[in-house]
Amino acid sequence: MKIAFIGLGNMGLPMAQNLARAGFAVAGFDLAAGQMDALAAVGGERADSAAAAVAGSDVVITMLPASRHVESTYLGEGGVLDYAAPGTLFIDCSTIAPDAARKVEAAAAARGFAMIDAPVSGGTGGAQAGTLTFMVGGAAADLDRARPLLEKMGRNIFHAGGSGAGQTVKVCNNMLLGILMAGTAEALRLGMANGMAPTVLSEIMAKSSGRNWVLEVYNPCPGVMDSAPSSRGYRGGFGVDLMLKDLGLAVENALSVGASVPVGALVRNLYDLHSKAGNGGLDFGSIFNLLGANSNSNAHA
Amino acid sequence: MKIAFIGLGNMGLPMAQNLARAGFAVAGFDLAAGQMDALAAVGGERADSAAAAVAGSDVVITMLPASRHVESTYLGEGGVLDYAAPGTLFIDCSTIAPDAARKVEAAAAARGFAMIDAPVSGGTGGAQAGTLTFMVGGAAADLDRARPLLEKMGRNIFHAGGSGAGQTVKVCNNMLLGILMAGTAEALRLGMANGMAPTVLSEIMAKSSGRNWVLEVYNPCPGVMDSAPSSRGYRGGFGVDLMLKDLGLAVENALSVGASVPVGALVRNLYDLHSKAGNGGLDFGSIFNLLGANSNSNAHA
Amino acid sequence: MKIAFIGLGNMGLPMAQNLARAGFAVAGFDLAAGQMDALAAVGGERADSAAAAVAGSDVVITMLPASRHVESTYLGEGGVLDYAAPGTLFIDCSTIAPDAARKVEAAAAARGFAMIDAPVSGGTGGAQAGTLTFMVGGAAADLDRARPLLEKMGRNIFHAGGSGAGQTVKVCNNMLLGILMAGTAEALRLGMANGMAPTVLSEIMAKSSGRNWVLEVYNPCPGVMDSAPSSRGYRGGFGVDLMLKDLGLAVENALSVGASVPVGALVRNLYDLHSKAGNGGLDFGSIFNLLGANSNSNAHA
Amino acid sequence: MKIAFIGLGNMGLPMAQNLARAGFAVAGFDLAAGQMDALAAVGGERADSAAAAVAGSDVVITMLPASRHVESTYLGEGGVLDYAAPGTLFIDCSTIAPDAARKVEAAAAARGFAMIDAPVSGGTGGAQAGTLTFMVGGAAADLDRARPLLEKMGRNIFHAGGSGAGQTVKVCNNMLLGILMAGTAEALRLGMANGMAPTVLSEIMAKSSGRNWVLEVYNPCPGVMDSAPSSRGYRGGFGVDLMLKDLGLAVENALSVGASVPVGALVRNLYDLHSKAGNGGLDFGSIFNLLGANSNSNAHA
Repeated sequence: MKIAFIGLGNMGLPMAQNLARAGFAVAGFDLAAGQMDALAAVGGERADSAAAAVAGSDVVITMLPASRHVESTYLGEGGVLDYAAPGTLFIDCSTIAPDAARKVEAAAAARGFAMIDAPVSGGTGGAQAGTLTFMVGGAAADLDRARPLLEKMGRNIFHAGGSGAGQTVKVCNNMLLGILMAGTAEALRLGMANGMAPTVLSEIMAKSSGRNWVLEVYNPCPGVMDSAPSSRGYRGGFGVDLMLKDLGLAVENALSVGASVPVGALVRNLYDLHSKAGNGGLDFGSIFNLLGANSNSNAHA
Repeated sequence: MKIAFIGLGNMGLPMAQNLARAGFAVAGFDLAAGQMDALAAVGGERADSAAAAVAGSDVVITMLPASRHVESTYLGEGGVLDYAAPGTLFIDCSTIAPDAARKVEAAAAARGFAMIDAPVSGGTGGAQAGTLTFMVGGAAADLDRARPLLEKMGRNIFHAGGSGAGQTVKVCNNMLLGILMAGTAEALRLGMANGMAPTVLSEIMAKSSGRNWVLEVYNPCPGVMDSAPSSRGYRGGFGVDLMLKDLGLAVENALSVGASVPVGALVRNLYDLHSKAGNGGLDFGSIFNLLGANSNSNAHA
Repeated sequence: MKIAFIGLGNMGLPMAQNLARAGFAVAGFDLAAGQMDALAAVGGERADSAAAAVAGSDVVITMLPASRHVESTYLGEGGVLDYAAPGTLFIDCSTIAPDAARKVEAAAAARGFAMIDAPVSGGTGGAQAGTLTFMVGGAAADLDRARPLLEKMGRNIFHAGGSGAGQTVKVCNNMLLGILMAGTAEALRLGMANGMAPTVLSEIMAKSSGRNWVLEVYNPCPGVMDSAPSSRGYRGGFGVDLMLKDLGLAVENALSVGASVPVGALVRNLYDLHSKAGNGGLDFGSIFNLLGANSNSNAHA
Repeated sequence: MKIAFIGLGNMGLPMAQNLARAGFAVAGFDLAAGQMDALAAVGGERADSAAAAVAGSDVVITMLPASRHVESTYLGEGGVLDYAAPGTLFIDCSTIAPDAARKVEAAAAARGFAMIDAPVSGGTGGAQAGTLTFMVGGAAADLDRARPLLEKMGRNIFHAGGSGAGQTVKVCNNMLLGILMAGTAEALRLGMANGMAPTVLSEIMAKSSGRNWVLEVYNPCPGVMDSAPSSRGYRGGFGVDLMLKDLGLAVENALSVGASVPVGALVRNLYDLHSKAGNGGLDFGSIFNLLGANSNSNAHA
């Protein structure tokens, strides 16, 4: 089976490498030549263009930054839809707007192609280790075709529903994650301003109805959890600007489908202010810092 | 050991009954005579006044609606501090402002009394079954004296720290719970407006980084979880107005100690609007309804 | 001068009628035949299609509900750009996204056409009376060509800047208006909950630093201002769903250009909840009702 | 007539000086001796204590930082109520919680004293120039007694209603002012991110339904209005921490009386974050800076 892999960035490259290492024929394309070299180093092929990668492939995988890149790659003149052979399966692993996913998949279907949306979670660490989680939208039969490839790149594969459902789950889950993080940071700050030790407070809440993923594995208060980015200066982890992008997708999607997300919108705006203050590259747990010092000096009478 | 129990409401009565059934001598006082009768029916005593209950007791337990009741019961003229015998231990199980708890405990200490704050979670069901969770602030030695009693009323006992720490943990945890609920409701609404089945979406998020107590045991979307109040018309459970009270304590406490809780404040206001629309008596998962129908009709172009 | 007027709705019809009454040759097109009859009744012409209206016109005016209608009317196959004669001036009076305005105007320019965006304020009353305000984006020379027509439909004409600037001003102003309304309603509710008469409070704030357009001409509390929609059951005026549309454009535009509008986003969400509760057709001052009764019953201890 | 003036800070000193210059006998007390010297320099007297100032005075005026100072000054042992002669009129010009004002005035009334709350706006400039605005709560007859004094210190005197109404109007107006400022800053940022000149945008909105006090006299964008603090580095003017105090009073009061102020609460939290980032001493228009640079770099795809 021949695979075209378009988009060899921080996520795409290790994913494509895992496929190549597993023995698949992978033709990669990226605007950065160095990324293609790194793929070739583990047995992949360099392609001169997206079109060249696509030509003669059985499966096309795309991993691109945003909706507009996916749209232009598939729908633009000389795009994937123009060059793919009949019967090709498209797998878009980018995180994009559900609307955009549905639009591209409808265009693919109109030309007779099968396509699934398969955004991931797990970060660059998961991409390298092959332990990503895939959230998949599309027909079950198409997911079955994709499964042998996805299993080389990830560990959990959820079938969320029809076209766009993978993106929808991603956007819902990550909006909720942003809310969990901001809410947990506020609860910890509130306790600390009352003089409580964050470790004790975290332990009790993790056993109570405040329990959530952030308290369990990603505590935003430095020193509470050695393995969390907060304990190493908020370096590594999942960046503020990536969370901001996902929250922006959620708010935009909510406007588009008429859903109400007042809390999600506020959390997006807090991340926006935090990013504009120069913290876009820190781990998203650093929202803890936006809430400021624990001093009592701002208390009013 | 003789116990005075002041405040025999929906929570206080079953707690006092559990102590009486366990063989303790419990003198109860409440403004409602019927509640005292119910205590007497399981072996407790009726007291004519708070003062009468307190006189000659080794331990005084209070379970009252709000800060002002606790303050007047302990600090008012002819209050508990005036009638208690030297060496009496005070246990306040009410949910009140951390500031108020610290104030009353300081007044008790100034008169030579030991006092702990021990608010509970678990609701009326937990009170009846004797499975409450206690979050305790105060000296370890005083908690040790209280423990044999608390163990008849509850299952988990957390020592949170010094005076007021029990109230602080309660307020932090419940603010976070309110945020988890509102955030989960929004994520479900967003997915559903995109056409997703809430059950599938809930399952995937519960295994992903959106995981939290609400998704695990208290899903706010009707039909997803049979055991949740949402599946029985939001009846029973933890009421909107109780959550609103706890979120009000959190916002008030944040103002008092200079902490920043923008998300908690918004969620309080959403519960406030929900209550004002006439939903104060429903389970707090009904915030799902505030977010409205899943129709697409409000989508703009 | 021959004018094509596309979109004869509640706003477009009276605008086109004012042009016809002023002696211009106006060929109108709308999907609703009755609207074209109403134009014909004052001397206009019925056109069989947008294309037929456009053919041979010197100026094309469009007044359509949303971005997608404007895009398809101008850019679609067989759209305005395909049928207009060289030298035609396009005036889009619709309220749409600044991005969409810039896109359509760029496409028009690429085909050699001049175009301005000229959204209005003043409502159906202003459209009928010919007293609208126009906020215009585009070249000054093109505005000069349009001015004799705009002056028959409105009273104030602001030149905001280049392409899209009319839409930008409209979106900024109306977001601010939504904030003024919500903020004024909150201030009045807060005073009333303290026992103050809303009339006295309004008078003092209108002379103080709380002064704003809402306090001056559009008080949302029933009975304070006879001329305001609040004093006639929130009927007439500027509807909740129209404000919701404009706030949606603001939030969407902010996402697109990277601006931060946390307060605007919250106000949009309050209008969204208000609309979902069934109030979309009331005047936007009815947000006063979302804030609920003045009772003290929700106060916590 | 003999006047006791307690609290000679940045506001109180120039107010007391204006009374002394107008020929009234003013005995001033403040913890800072230098402030009393400054009063003596224009003909006032130094008092050794609040009690000494109060003894034998016809009118007592207080100008203190917060509720707790007013409560202890009037209600504490050896406080004003203990030393004032029968028939003394109390005028509290401090900005404090309406609840606190009502409490102190009820205590004064119970001892047979007349009292009005008379908070001011106009800042230190208005205090020096004698052009303050007074918002007065209390009986009309008591205001009439106070009027000759107030007229030496201010220009506008509003009678808001009964006891506490002056504080209520102050809190409502200043919450609304905070909302106007944040909303105007957002609207300007949104326009600028679309490439608009802030001066043009401000001019058009000031003539449209976005019109408000901030656009008229206090534009937060540097360079738009020479007389505004924004055009001199946000120095002078009304400080962030003072606005934060007033917004805190509004949120606290809303909790107390059961009013809903979701927008006011968000704006308070934005000022709180802005203060915690180190900007507490700047003019409150600097919230414009919290919204960050106008770059497009945070826009998502």
